[in-house]
Amino acid sequence: MFDNDRLFKRDPEELAISRELYNEVAKLPIVSPHGHTDPQWFAENKNFNNATELLIKPDHYVFRMLYSQGIKLEELGIQRTDGGAVEQDSRKIWHVFANNYYLFHGTPSRIWMDYVFKAVFGFEISLDENTADYYYDKINQKLATNEFKPRALLDKFNIELLATTEHATDELKHHAKLKGTGLENTVITSFRPDDVIDPDHWNFSTSIVTLAEQTGEDISDWHGYLRALKARREFFIQHGATASDHGHPTARTANLSPTECQTLLNKVLAGSATAEERDLFRAQMLTEMAGMSLEDGLVMQIHPGVFRNHNQKLYQTFGTDKGCDIPVRTSYVDNLHPLLSKYGTESDLRIILFTLDESTYARELAPLAGHYPCLKLGPAWWFNDSPEGMLRFRHNVTETAGFYNTVGFNDDTRAFLSIPSRHDVARRIDCRFLAQLVAERRLPIDDAHTLAYDLSYRLAKEAYQRTK
Amino acid sequence: MFDNDRLFKRDPEELAISRELYNEVAKLPIVSPHGHTDPQWFAENKNFNNATELLIKPDHYVFRMLYSQGIKLEELGIQRTDGGAVEQDSRKIWHVFANNYYLFHGTPSRIWMDYVFKAVFGFEISLDENTADYYYDKINQKLATNEFKPRALLDKFNIELLATTEHATDELKHHAKLKGTGLENTVITSFRPDDVIDPDHWNFSTSIVTLAEQTGEDISDWHGYLRALKARREFFIQHGATASDHGHPTARTANLSPTECQTLLNKVLAGSATAEERDLFRAQMLTEMAGMSLEDGLVMQIHPGVFRNHNQKLYQTFGTDKGCDIPVRTSYVDNLHPLLSKYGTESDLRIILFTLDESTYARELAPLAGHYPCLKLGPAWWFNDSPEGMLRFRHNVTETAGFYNTVGFNDDTRAFLSIPSRHDVARRIDCRFLAQLVAERRLPIDDAHTLAYDLSYRLAKEAYQRTK
Amino acid sequence: MFDNDRLFKRDPEELAISRELYNEVAKLPIVSPHGHTDPQWFAENKNFNNATELLIKPDHYVFRMLYSQGIKLEELGIQRTDGGAVEQDSRKIWHVFANNYYLFHGTPSRIWMDYVFKAVFGFEISLDENTADYYYDKINQKLATNEFKPRALLDKFNIELLATTEHATDELKHHAKLKGTGLENTVITSFRPDDVIDPDHWNFSTSIVTLAEQTGEDISDWHGYLRALKARREFFIQHGATASDHGHPTARTANLSPTECQTLLNKVLAGSATAEERDLFRAQMLTEMAGMSLEDGLVMQIHPGVFRNHNQKLYQTFGTDKGCDIPVRTSYVDNLHPLLSKYGTESDLRIILFTLDESTYARELAPLAGHYPCLKLGPAWWFNDSPEGMLRFRHNVTETAGFYNTVGFNDDTRAFLSIPSRHDVARRIDCRFLAQLVAERRLPIDDAHTLAYDLSYRLAKEAYQRTK
Repeated sequence: MFDNDRLFKRDPEELAISRELYNEVAKLPIVSPHGHTDPQWFAENKNFNNATELLIKPDHYVFRMLYSQGIKLEELGIQRTDGGAVEQDSRKIWHVFANNYYLFHGTPSRIWMDYVFKAVFGFEISLDENTADYYYDKINQKLATNEFKPRALLDKFNIELLATTEHATDELKHHAKLKGTGLENTVITSFRPDDVIDPDHWNFSTSIVTLAEQTGEDISDWHGYLRALKARREFFIQHGATASDHGHPTARTANLSPTECQTLLNKVLAGSATAEERDLFRAQMLTEMAGMSLEDGLVMQIHPGVFRNHNQKLYQTFGTDKGCDIPVRTSYVDNLHPLLSKYGTESDLRIILFTLDESTYARELAPLAGHYPCLKLGPAWWFNDSPEGMLRFRHNVTETAGFYNTVGFNDDTRAFLSIPSRHDVARRIDCRFLAQLVAERRLPIDDAHTLAYDLSYRLAKEAYQRTK
Repeated sequence: MFDNDRLFKRDPEELAISRELYNEVAKLPIVSPHGHTDPQWFAENKNFNNATELLIKPDHYVFRMLYSQGIKLEELGIQRTDGGAVEQDSRKIWHVFANNYYLFHGTPSRIWMDYVFKAVFGFEISLDENTADYYYDKINQKLATNEFKPRALLDKFNIELLATTEHATDELKHHAKLKGTGLENTVITSFRPDDVIDPDHWNFSTSIVTLAEQTGEDISDWHGYLRALKARREFFIQHGATASDHGHPTARTANLSPTECQTLLNKVLAGSATAEERDLFRAQMLTEMAGMSLEDGLVMQIHPGVFRNHNQKLYQTFGTDKGCDIPVRTSYVDNLHPLLSKYGTESDLRIILFTLDESTYARELAPLAGHYPCLKLGPAWWFNDSPEGMLRFRHNVTETAGFYNTVGFNDDTRAFLSIPSRHDVARRIDCRFLAQLVAERRLPIDDAHTLAYDLSYRLAKEAYQRTK
Repeated sequence: MFDNDRLFKRDPEELAISRELYNEVAKLPIVSPHGHTDPQWFAENKNFNNATELLIKPDHYVFRMLYSQGIKLEELGIQRTDGGAVEQDSRKIWHVFANNYYLFHGTPSRIWMDYVFKAVFGFEISLDENTADYYYDKINQKLATNEFKPRALLDKFNIELLATTEHATDELKHHAKLKGTGLENTVITSFRPDDVIDPDHWNFSTSIVTLAEQTGEDISDWHGYLRALKARREFFIQHGATASDHGHPTARTANLSPTECQTLLNKVLAGSATAEERDLFRAQMLTEMAGMSLEDGLVMQIHPGVFRNHNQKLYQTFGTDKGCDIPVRTSYVDNLHPLLSKYGTESDLRIILFTLDESTYARELAPLAGHYPCLKLGPAWWFNDSPEGMLRFRHNVTETAGFYNTVGFNDDTRAFLSIPSRHDVARRIDCRFLAQLVAERRLPIDDAHTLAYDLSYRLAKEAYQRTK
């Protein structure tokens, strides 16, 4: 399972080319311009607790699969919002995971975990119920060493850049602490303002008050509100941010007059906005964010199309990010039209589009990115951050958008230890795709070498290094 | 064409693994938990008529293709609802089929037919206009023997379980007749209540009256109506049913109060319900059926997303199931939300979701089934019950839902003789898919063996054996 | 890159079969029943200007990719509608193209261009910034010769039939000029009435007046309007047309009474029709066109689902067809229902459906074409006229629609020199697909030979040679 040819196609010719391409990019530094690791790890540099705390509890890819097979989240030690009883015995939880590890066959979680076990912890035998204790003890032993402290792992993993994601009102204390450590250019933040521009965000009413306090602006005034947002963007830029990130339910944008915006803002702040008005507000705010990006140089990432917290009972008991966010059909062509009509021809603006609706790859996203100078396509995202998902991405977008309207790989993860594995999968799959083109005489081998380097390293660096 | 390596990928390594996996599952008993064979065949055990009556006239896959090329259904002997003249000469119809057999190149119908001709009837030469009579005579000869009686074929085909599908008001006489024959656990029924819960079902007004008569309930009372449905479910369970089946136009569900339900029922029975109200009624009834499933243990199958009888002229002349049912875009995330908000966390409930809209595989269905304990994914259905369709299913759902949120194969057919062929195709394609994972070092070979067995046999048994 | 095995799968068995099939069809005459070349070229038979004028400026596939990477259309010499300054130096423009030729890696434009450079112009070295002048001079040299005059190229390319596309009010002067030259059956027109049946067409108000003048009909009268359209169809048929073509935003059709039609026409002509009414008018007109096709035998092509001129600023500056037409989600099942309810069972009618929404291939289009006698599926279109696009088409439609409900290849291009390349790609990909079926024992080799011929040549001829 940890064969050096894993994930390559078996045709001898393609396999040989895949190897040749991969060998040159396998050890390139990791550029991770979008993700969700905790900056506190790197600021404080304390040892991680134990295998269960590090590898299971924070990983909703893992516990959602166990949950889908009838295992209660309480059995996995996931904290209830009401403080109700959940399993406290981390070893016991680890056993539940080990006993059910077969459920992950065919999933990327299994690929990442196997990599972590082998390449990070050095296991030679597989995880199952018989080896569960052996695994648990050995992992914990290692986690307690200096070699497995967060900053040491950054080195070990050859991470050149790691962007975390913070909400607009975050004080960025951990990033501030990194200044002067030599890591301030390695671990940077990204600006995620959903909580202050999406009236349906669970924390909107609180965050908007904080926003006013932090900036001293009158956020009930449309222009004051925009100034407050600009100030926060500037604050994030000072802490290393080169990108903003937007997780709206849809890709809808709008282009309203300032008067209309003021009216909408009034309703939103008064809590009297209808669902349609709140949606329109979000839509307008994406366009505003694009305008600010053009000014301050933050690269704008749009991650739309998820029905968050679909399982209401689970959400009520356990809160957000519990594996029940479900993608929905998404449209880009009509939805982005207002924004693109205003800013689409600006080649100094960069907007990176993501999707969980793969039917838009060839139909909408590749034609849009293959035309508009400001648009690039983000890599296969979330559920599609997987070997098959990445192959579908390349097969569906390349013919229309080419390679140079894409931006390399994002790991987008809070599972720190899986980062090398995820980048390794991406590099392998890209090399496999390029190898197929070479073998089928659709791409010269020399250009494939250049592209392998670009897709593994260069494009991610270039795409996200913007701020003026 | 009947090579033992058919449908396997040709890469030598994958081919060898495919063979190895397939050889262990090829001869496993057939479990067919959802289909449309006629229980009368097994109850009466009479010989089938002739090749045309058995293989062409009931198979809308076959005659729709001939029709699409300009051959009238009358020429194929398909009965008109007005009793108008149609071809009576079965041999002549067989010739039309034979002469046009080339039209089926590349279709699963051709694969199934070739299998039937070779493996069931022993033909060594291909069917075409020259061999049409030879085929026709030899098939009819065999059909007249004891060896080709329905019950003998159940044995010959190694069928362990065969579920038929009957409407809610069916008296299940044929299944009753099977009691005591030793076949009562082999040929079972399934509960399909569309005709009494879908106001737009062509037979709703008649069936609802029958329902009241059969159960003695006042079906104009919401609670009486629900009791009547429960009684019929119980009746079906007594005749072996372990599953219900729901063929609604969409996957919409609702969660109304009893008062709202009573109001809706009144309108539906009075024939005054609007299209939206009839749709809401269907939606509410799916949620009610889920509630009853939780109580009585019937596994709930949802088969949504078909525009039935799209060709109005054909429907008027020939009735339902004439090859003009056309899939439409289908949504699950919003539509199932009411039902899942009520019952989604119940791990004692089992709902199997099907689709004809493959864009929902990776986007909606795999994430839903990869989270909710009550949800499983049915196999590639109808038009996608084919080599390519099955491959797309596995490639698109496995990474998010894994293998164990799927339920093995359904043949879903009224073409009895094609059942071994259809299961053979499914087993081959699953082995091919597993072989690819093994070859690409994404799955250990030992686990692939287990999975081949599970996908071919065990999961279908487990998924459908519920009733308490 | 110009290997004789290009685009074939590398598996040795499939490769051998691909070669065997391809060798028999590689040199078949080209039948191009739908495209956008300029009939003036063939009428006047003048030499083409230079490489830039011929290969870059008219090819929106090429300049949209350069534009997406920040190169202004002015730098590429694309004419502004306001006559504003644009680059005039064709050699300089050629250099911009050559320097950025790497952007096209993985795109069909690169495949076509490489073919043109190698097979048409005889280059042995690749185009890049160093060879740009060499290329430019040599191409221009050749373009100035008799051998590269338009009619000579028709011969050289072995083009048996080339259909151009003209608007309904076109006077077809160039086609008239071809009469008696021996080319009148080679270069034919097609009837594209968007400008007189789509009220939102940019030229509708002008064209509708021309229509009245040309035909002498009172187009304000519904029946007069229809007569005028019939007259134009007849005029086109006299100039060789065998097909009509319809580029509506959606596939919506309608079936209104003549009174309703008259009311709608009144509003449309008065300019008072709402967006919905204009859409309904278009919808009704598709049904009318189908009715006329049934009478006069023109094959009806429907190319729906494009948001035209999405980039408003670009459209305002440069006009239509500038690479910013973006596909949108498209529906066929509901939309075509009115038309099919009226004419669907007519086997003397032929409607060829196209799509840019590949999610409809397996879900809607294949089931529709696999049933309705009047429907056929056009090949992978526009953005999907590419190796991957063609493979997706065959993989997704064949199992339900078979091969014989498809119509062979369309190049659909205004890039004359790319025609042999495009047909070559289509033939290679079809042979590759057939080879896979043969290798996997899903198709006998003899039938694959027949199919290779049919898909490369016969079906295109048959599908489009209708008029009575």
